Amino acid sequence: MNLILLEDDDFVERERRVVLRGRRFRHVVEVHRAAIGRELNVGHLGGRMGHGTVSRLAGNEIEMEVALYRDPPPALPITLVVALPRPKVLARLLSAVTAMGVKRIAFVNSWRVEKSYWKSPRLAPERLRDALLLGLEQGCDTVVPDISFERFLKPFCDERLPAIARGTLPIVAHPEARRACPRGINGPVTIAIGPEGGFIAEEIALFEAAGFEPVTLGERILTVEAAVPALLGRIS
Amino acid sequence: MNLILLEDDDFVERERRVVLRGRRFRHVVEVHRAAIGRELNVGHLGGRMGHGTVSRLAGNEIEMEVALYRDPPPALPITLVVALPRPKVLARLLSAVTAMGVKRIAFVNSWRVEKSYWKSPRLAPERLRDALLLGLEQGCDTVVPDISFERFLKPFCDERLPAIARGTLPIVAHPEARRACPRGINGPVTIAIGPEGGFIAEEIALFEAAGFEPVTLGERILTVEAAVPALLGRIS
Repeated sequence: MNLILLEDDDFVERERRVVLRGRRFRHVVEVHRAAIGRELNVGHLGGRMGHGTVSRLAGNEIEMEVALYRDPPPALPITLVVALPRPKVLARLLSAVTAMGVKRIAFVNSWRVEKSYWKSPRLAPERLRDALLLGLEQGCDTVVPDISFERFLKPFCDERLPAIARGTLPIVAHPEARRACPRGINGPVTIAIGPEGGFIAEEIALFEAAGFEPVTLGERILTVEAAVPALLGRIS
Repeated sequence: MNLILLEDDDFVERERRVVLRGRRFRHVVEVHRAAIGRELNVGHLGGRMGHGTVSRLAGNEIEMEVALYRDPPPALPITLVVALPRPKVLARLLSAVTAMGVKRIAFVNSWRVEKSYWKSPRLAPERLRDALLLGLEQGCDTVVPDISFERFLKPFCDERLPAIARGTLPIVAHPEARRACPRGINGPVTIAIGPEGGFIAEEIALFEAAGFEPVTLGERILTVEAAVPALLGRIS
């Protein structure tokens, strides 16, 4: 928790004073070993960032005077379209890309995505939200990414993807592509990434019909948890 | 397991026929559902790659005729110097960077590395080897990276690091650096990456004395598991 996220309900005085309990209270006390007067990085969820000064410590709550004086860091201008990973990996991936500044993620179906993944309790909104907030706390940001789940790839590619990708460079990772993935793109990108074995040919064709160019990252096969940060590092 | 790694002891006929038992036998049977005649990707540890054709299946072993006809993929010309991460993270990080093709990794101490990390049973050679082999199986490679553990940062930086970095571009990730991390370097690089809070100023000075230039990846703080792939994607 490199940033303590403050929600509207935490404020006892608007934009000025908060009282924290539960997980954040314990973190501030146990990890930061906060005492009265200690300054900590804080951010108002969806809003500005600054610092909080511990003004009161009780048995199960902490009060801070907060000063919010700067904007969150710029978003990464990258929209991710990712084949739904194993549920165990989903939360870690969400936290990682949120920390990196991605603000739009669509999880899509693919021939190689196991059907059972779509029924996992880990896709419950509150668990996804926990992963997103962890990512914001890690990366020091306050703006929650938009995420969506696209159970049916064809209608998504036919009907919604062209609008999502408009005004961006649309590329799809494909091990068999001839063109190498571009580097250091100075502008918005929409990048589609398949499951570990890649999208199948018919799926690549759907992306191509939506204007996406297939690009390759080389012959090595990476887990989605390594492949996505590597791609973001390469194209951003 | 995108590649089945064969060790010397597996060969019943030199470079031609192997018998596998244990973990690889189960994987071939349960995941690949291999039957007689099935072709699978194989690689000889430290040597060439090709395919194996299942020639016999028994209760607890599988025999394959193998043909080794191509070299492993080129190594990534990047040497990693990384502050020792939490033991739980170490294996995942090792597998990920091995899959990406890194061949030289030095884990170093830092002010912000907890002393207890150095005593973890997860640093035992056989557990490290398991993580490296998993990375080779994932990324389809046969060449095991060299790894070392440098318990004392100063003598390492003073005495050994200059030789390691010779002939490479030496950079050290430092959140407060003015220069942005370079992109798409066409040549060998040695990159040093601190613990999550970064190396402290005195440590950065040790790297600078060894010829390293501090570079920043931006204001976001990433976990080592996301930061390292992102860096490798950016500089390679």
